[in-house]
Amino acid sequence: MASYAVLLEYQGEAFEGWQIQGEGSRTVQGCLREALATLTGESVTPRGSGRTDSGVHAEGQVASFALETDWDPGKLERALNGVLPADVGARQVARVAEGFDALRDAIGKEYRYRIWNRRERSPLRAARFAHIPYPLAVEAMQEAAVLLTGEQDFQSFQAAGSDVKTTVRELHELSLKPGPLGEIEILAHGKGFLRHMVRNLVGTLLEVGAGRREASSMPSLLARCDRGAAGPTAPAHGLTLERVFYPSDPFGPGEGDAKSRDSKGKSV
Amino acid sequence: MASYAVLLEYQGEAFEGWQIQGEGSRTVQGCLREALATLTGESVTPRGSGRTDSGVHAEGQVASFALETDWDPGKLERALNGVLPADVGARQVARVAEGFDALRDAIGKEYRYRIWNRRERSPLRAARFAHIPYPLAVEAMQEAAVLLTGEQDFQSFQAAGSDVKTTVRELHELSLKPGPLGEIEILAHGKGFLRHMVRNLVGTLLEVGAGRREASSMPSLLARCDRGAAGPTAPAHGLTLERVFYPSDPFGPGEGDAKSRDSKGKSV
Repeated sequence: MASYAVLLEYQGEAFEGWQIQGEGSRTVQGCLREALATLTGESVTPRGSGRTDSGVHAEGQVASFALETDWDPGKLERALNGVLPADVGARQVARVAEGFDALRDAIGKEYRYRIWNRRERSPLRAARFAHIPYPLAVEAMQEAAVLLTGEQDFQSFQAAGSDVKTTVRELHELSLKPGPLGEIEILAHGKGFLRHMVRNLVGTLLEVGAGRREASSMPSLLARCDRGAAGPTAPAHGLTLERVFYPSDPFGPGEGDAKSRDSKGKSV
Repeated sequence: MASYAVLLEYQGEAFEGWQIQGEGSRTVQGCLREALATLTGESVTPRGSGRTDSGVHAEGQVASFALETDWDPGKLERALNGVLPADVGARQVARVAEGFDALRDAIGKEYRYRIWNRRERSPLRAARFAHIPYPLAVEAMQEAAVLLTGEQDFQSFQAAGSDVKTTVRELHELSLKPGPLGEIEILAHGKGFLRHMVRNLVGTLLEVGAGRREASSMPSLLARCDRGAAGPTAPAHGLTLERVFYPSDPFGPGEGDAKSRDSKGKSV
């Protein structure tokens, strides 16, 4: 057996999320399993670093799997890109130590939420940005975001009906970066996230930005541990899983890593 | 009669270009004409600053038209966005002097061509970037680009079968900007462009980048005035019409102009 990790990019629009569901559901995990079966004849179910919801994109989802046959990682990456559909691609494939588990071994994740904050809609950004047509008080949102970081009980931000051992998570960073044209990017970097947590944080920050909620109310909102007390779940298509962190990066600093390119951005 | 200009953004993928064609062709001009008819009951054919080809995007195409009825520009913009399909939107509508002609009055245009220059494809960039999987010599491309600027006869870069009075055009700028992950943006700013000219310039620069053509050969290539001597037409989906220039900006510095936003990108 040989163990592999694959770094996946996908446009989430036409997927019902990462995780394999019933018949007729198009999922990223299902497409990857099918591609691996086509290439190797083996029936393996790749394990993702976590589920992404229906419509959520990924720049760098990570999945692990083991194959009976030995494949050169570069060859497997090219072969996967040859059989995967156009909206999902393998950025890199790496050999990993036996037992590497993309889910269990992950020590952090980075998400980016994109907002288009102009009154008029933007057809060119419609696939990746949530359109918020009313003015947002970005500074108040920034204040609120800071109050939501750290090790906290995020139960108020967890999807209703979830069942996890603990709702305490550590959020290293939650920050807003406004762009020149009306874009706002919200970066969330944490050790782990509850179901819908990023989108619920964003939905709450949007209420702060709209003046319907005070930035200073964040600590009491966390303390209430009540999903009904927080804002609505922000739309899925604004969210991208940017990166998954491991104690030792299975992919770097290899060919697929941006840092291995020279300052002009050329391939090396 | 009241004259208007509209600043249009569109995702070109599902359009057969700007210009109205026969029955069954979905065009941006056709969608705009239909939207205006729905809103006003008037049958007007908006005039664009120029045709964009099938698949080409626009951040800022400009079209002009006149209506019998008097519309508040802001109201007309919102009404247009309510009836236009999702892949085309009105960024702004402005009242303009009688006789303003989006085509004839244009004094310059800016295009951006996006290249994804990594071996592996990028599903998240597939709609806007042309994928060039082999390494490109960006410096040689930059050298060649400089040699293509200025007032020149661009006949070698004009679509075969075109019929224009003169193939002399003034290209103010043709420059490359490599990004950190393997993106390369080519900016073309000129007084006017021949049919397919930007994409033919890009196709030729790509041959320089691949080492199949010398940067220093650009002057002789221009001198040949032969379409067959230049490179292939680069794919349409990498191209975006960014901006059209007029002696006096019909839209600025109004609400729809990025410059009217504060440094934090908030709506003002």
